[in-house]
Amino acid sequence: MTTASPQQMDLPFDSSPVRSNPVAQVRKTPAGKTGSGRRPSGGTGAAGKRSGRKSAESMAKQQREISVSEFFAKNRHLLGFDNKRKALLTTVKEAVDNSLDACEEAGILADLEIDVQQLAEDRFRVVVRDNGPGIVRQQIPNIFGKLLYGSKFHRLKMARGQQGIGISAAGMYGLITTGKPISIISRVGRNKEAHHFKVAIDTHKNRPEVSHDETVEVEWDHGTRVEIELVASFIKGRQGIGEYIEQTAIANPHARIVYRAPTGERCEYPRGVEDLPEEPREIKPHPYGIELGTLMKMLKTTESQKLGGFLQKEFSRVSGLVAKKVCAQSATTPLTWINGLDTATIEKLYNALQATKIMAPSTDCLSPIGVEAILSGLLKGVKAEFYTASTRSPAVYRGNPFQIEVGLAYGGQLGSSLVNGNGKSENAQARVIRFANRVPLLYRQSACSTFKAVLETKWSNYGVSQPRGALPQSPIIVLIHMASVWVPFTSESKEAIADYDEIRKEIKLALAETARRLGIYLRRKKKRIAYTQRRDVFTRYIHEVVESVRSMAVCDKEKLRRSLMELAERATLAADMEFDEHGKVVRKKRPDANPALADTVIVGAEDSAPEASTLFDDTTNGARRKRGAVKRPRKAARGKKRR
Amino acid sequence: MTTASPQQMDLPFDSSPVRSNPVAQVRKTPAGKTGSGRRPSGGTGAAGKRSGRKSAESMAKQQREISVSEFFAKNRHLLGFDNKRKALLTTVKEAVDNSLDACEEAGILADLEIDVQQLAEDRFRVVVRDNGPGIVRQQIPNIFGKLLYGSKFHRLKMARGQQGIGISAAGMYGLITTGKPISIISRVGRNKEAHHFKVAIDTHKNRPEVSHDETVEVEWDHGTRVEIELVASFIKGRQGIGEYIEQTAIANPHARIVYRAPTGERCEYPRGVEDLPEEPREIKPHPYGIELGTLMKMLKTTESQKLGGFLQKEFSRVSGLVAKKVCAQSATTPLTWINGLDTATIEKLYNALQATKIMAPSTDCLSPIGVEAILSGLLKGVKAEFYTASTRSPAVYRGNPFQIEVGLAYGGQLGSSLVNGNGKSENAQARVIRFANRVPLLYRQSACSTFKAVLETKWSNYGVSQPRGALPQSPIIVLIHMASVWVPFTSESKEAIADYDEIRKEIKLALAETARRLGIYLRRKKKRIAYTQRRDVFTRYIHEVVESVRSMAVCDKEKLRRSLMELAERATLAADMEFDEHGKVVRKKRPDANPALADTVIVGAEDSAPEASTLFDDTTNGARRKRGAVKRPRKAARGKKRR
Repeated sequence: MTTASPQQMDLPFDSSPVRSNPVAQVRKTPAGKTGSGRRPSGGTGAAGKRSGRKSAESMAKQQREISVSEFFAKNRHLLGFDNKRKALLTTVKEAVDNSLDACEEAGILADLEIDVQQLAEDRFRVVVRDNGPGIVRQQIPNIFGKLLYGSKFHRLKMARGQQGIGISAAGMYGLITTGKPISIISRVGRNKEAHHFKVAIDTHKNRPEVSHDETVEVEWDHGTRVEIELVASFIKGRQGIGEYIEQTAIANPHARIVYRAPTGERCEYPRGVEDLPEEPREIKPHPYGIELGTLMKMLKTTESQKLGGFLQKEFSRVSGLVAKKVCAQSATTPLTWINGLDTATIEKLYNALQATKIMAPSTDCLSPIGVEAILSGLLKGVKAEFYTASTRSPAVYRGNPFQIEVGLAYGGQLGSSLVNGNGKSENAQARVIRFANRVPLLYRQSACSTFKAVLETKWSNYGVSQPRGALPQSPIIVLIHMASVWVPFTSESKEAIADYDEIRKEIKLALAETARRLGIYLRRKKKRIAYTQRRDVFTRYIHEVVESVRSMAVCDKEKLRRSLMELAERATLAADMEFDEHGKVVRKKRPDANPALADTVIVGAEDSAPEASTLFDDTTNGARRKRGAVKRPRKAARGKKRR
Repeated sequence: MTTASPQQMDLPFDSSPVRSNPVAQVRKTPAGKTGSGRRPSGGTGAAGKRSGRKSAESMAKQQREISVSEFFAKNRHLLGFDNKRKALLTTVKEAVDNSLDACEEAGILADLEIDVQQLAEDRFRVVVRDNGPGIVRQQIPNIFGKLLYGSKFHRLKMARGQQGIGISAAGMYGLITTGKPISIISRVGRNKEAHHFKVAIDTHKNRPEVSHDETVEVEWDHGTRVEIELVASFIKGRQGIGEYIEQTAIANPHARIVYRAPTGERCEYPRGVEDLPEEPREIKPHPYGIELGTLMKMLKTTESQKLGGFLQKEFSRVSGLVAKKVCAQSATTPLTWINGLDTATIEKLYNALQATKIMAPSTDCLSPIGVEAILSGLLKGVKAEFYTASTRSPAVYRGNPFQIEVGLAYGGQLGSSLVNGNGKSENAQARVIRFANRVPLLYRQSACSTFKAVLETKWSNYGVSQPRGALPQSPIIVLIHMASVWVPFTSESKEAIADYDEIRKEIKLALAETARRLGIYLRRKKKRIAYTQRRDVFTRYIHEVVESVRSMAVCDKEKLRRSLMELAERATLAADMEFDEHGKVVRKKRPDANPALADTVIVGAEDSAPEASTLFDDTTNGARRKRGAVKRPRKAARGKKRR
């Protein structure tokens, strides 16, 4: 699109609905008045002007509108299409995100079929079919053929999709690279017809062009089937579709996912749980989250007439009492007429809102994965020797509620299980698995707030060696999930979480919680090793002792040996310690290798859980102490050392 | 804006020119036909549907358009406004970029006045005035009150601005945080009136709202004065405005910049050179850069009728001969009618274009800073002991021409000048200064292709120690500039260059070039040290030798001593080596500390420069050898070791 000459370009734009008429804009305003006397700070007027270059007028002719789709077509790396490998993953990702969102919103247990076919060396076809509610006929073109169009942007509620770009962008990439439109079949109910659309995005106008629209017969009652053909390349393993789907299954145990890879193999991820996650509720913005300008706009657009009504209606957690307080502080009353407010007062009002103590936003707008699901996911995924997980209570950044969850697996088949990870081998380095609103994040790790939090955690305090400014050198897998009504991503491709202080702090606290439990386990392990050695020494000499005693006095050799042996064992009891996969001490190994989840949950659960104390005896007290000190983990850590 | 209820939201959009009518879209197409017989791969139809959740219809009601300004207001961290410190810098940056672009395009030697005033603890006013061509009245509202509006997006020509977002975004941030509109005074000529506008962006519609428009009297003949009030915070030093402006002065020696900091201090950066950089020319896209879909659109929108004409007119570097070749390979002729082409043929055509050997795009669309300017910039900026710089010849990524320049300064006051940088002290670590189209990049270094290239360079091959995967541990400053018609940034905030292989490769080659020169200097330095030690040993014993000889035979003691001393000096000549700041060996120090630039240029210039050989004797041969091997720097490096 970068080739058209101005004449050509102007054409589409003049007729384009996107254009707003600047002249009209200006005419509205009183022109021609002179000399407000305002003078900008002086400056040596004109410097040597070279002839033959452009004038303001000629430059003005080049000024023109840029459609958002042109913009992203040229900046497609912002959307995750910077190379062929990523293009394939991103396409699948956007389709799957939409399907899962739709199913959840409609209260349907998701049932996805993902089919990736290789048509030529770098030509692929991605087909994603869900059993969701389907899409009403009129909406199909805009949803798939228009950037920045969707239902999730304008509300405060946790969802995978946020910006109304994803699937249209995938379609656009397919169109640009193969010239093929995106193909959609959707059916909204058993007794409704299924519609088959082919939609291409007109990048000049950011508008859908429907090239095919007919009703078809399908075997399924309701759902949507999206088909995109694109230029891409397929990789297995890390950062591939396989990994993405595997992690998606972990974060969405309520979904059944079937994936056919280009290689022909078929993976099925059965449903882990039979009920849907709690449906998150939509909330109003929290006063702490807004800015002066936003408040002004809200006052303009609100339907309420009086200030008090406005505050209580448009914000969450603003009671009549709070409203009264705020008004009092800003020289107004709840009965003040809104259209009577001047800028100065609004600013006072704003400051009052920020100054007044207001309850944190309600958090039923979030649906965390939950400790149980995280642990079972880890147990399914990796054969480690120790597992733990924890869910923080919700917090707020820029007025948006969010919640951090962390899972941690250690040792076992994760690599050399040296306590102090001397094994500097590649596989001995920790690995971070990241999720945002149940969506796996596979790229831009180093730019992600979660990753920075892992680096900043003082792992050495928990018996895990960590090179300066690097990941811990130990066979650890850390799983981090951020659930929020608005996840701040570092780019439209939604690959990394922007580094807000509040967010990073919460992640670090969650990490500390799990790492502490790991530390206790590692210390116990060391202890056992020490005692085993002692016992060996002890028992090694029992025979001689028995012999020599015998030579001196008459006694029952066998009885003596046994008693000494008993003594030895009593003295070094710790050597018999056995651990389950949560670092809990058990006399003898459990019969069942895979622990009852109920148990797991208790271990991982917030420290408040009563049973926790029985399982993590000394720990949880530590935890309680820690919880108090949680605001300043460093101190707490030092405290630990001294102990 | 996230608060309005659907009813409220729909209103602005119905009336909004941005909305395209989906229904109309669909009606156009033949509906109602049944059963194309197409059946999607089956799937276990409906899973347990939970009641009380949304239906497709109710969900459809929520679908709506998102204006690009709403989007960026909510995602403002994408534009560089993620925190108060950055907000201030970004605002100044966007204003300055626009001013410099405007001046260059109009052929005016830029003369900028930047004034940052602190109004309250976190309230600032940014004022930037230039002596540019000014902006015609009708354009002012759109340029400052509308995202994605500008003159630079639709052409292939090097410029600081690219996307038509920057200054409007700054204005929007100011509006959101302070409620104050952006204020513009612009005058296009001595005999024209100056116009004063106050423009606020309507984020719902991404449209300017002009609240003030009158003519004013100003002291200057032409130029623009932009004033933005915003919530921000001011920092000195790294990543602050000061550093940004300093680096801008380095990269734009033709501009005079005056900066008044909030602290009151006033810095002036006088003009370094009196003539403008070569004006870059606009070019057509290169065939290698386009994609199938793009080609299809071009064929739709072109004015030419015949294929041959189209190829020669719309692309750069496509001669009649090339066009013939391409057509031949795609079973067409230059005389084939364009509107007769079917998809299959177009695809053939596309493949032919990619397969045919076509000259690299012309590069007069770029204006590199140039070795001279880089070196003088470094000389001004840092007191080092060794300087060098190099400009690569242009290359291409995705069809976009680009050019890499690298400057390198070593030792001196940069920190402990240990050859092998044992000094692990902070200041002994190398530092990277990054530019894109003459604009300094201060944030997201680790995400930047330039930074990765520095890490990947094998500095140890050049006598500089480098911890694995880290910056070289040595007092080095590396300056990297990428000039391109389209710099691929990792986000709209334009803070880091996306990591395209072609780009990173070029950067690494440029780095190797300069690092090699540094390596030679460091080796020479070592050599001198060694010889100095030898001489000391030698001379230490001359006295005894003389005495003992005297005792044996009659001879002129003084003469003998002198001859021996001469012998010593001859034997250890290398100890007398003196270097200038380019590692060039000079017998005695030059009188002038600051070297004539002419000289500098020769040193830094492309190896092809004849004088180079005289200055960098053995080196340039090495360079020549290297140039051959430039495609595989690793090998070349190993070769070096063996030598």
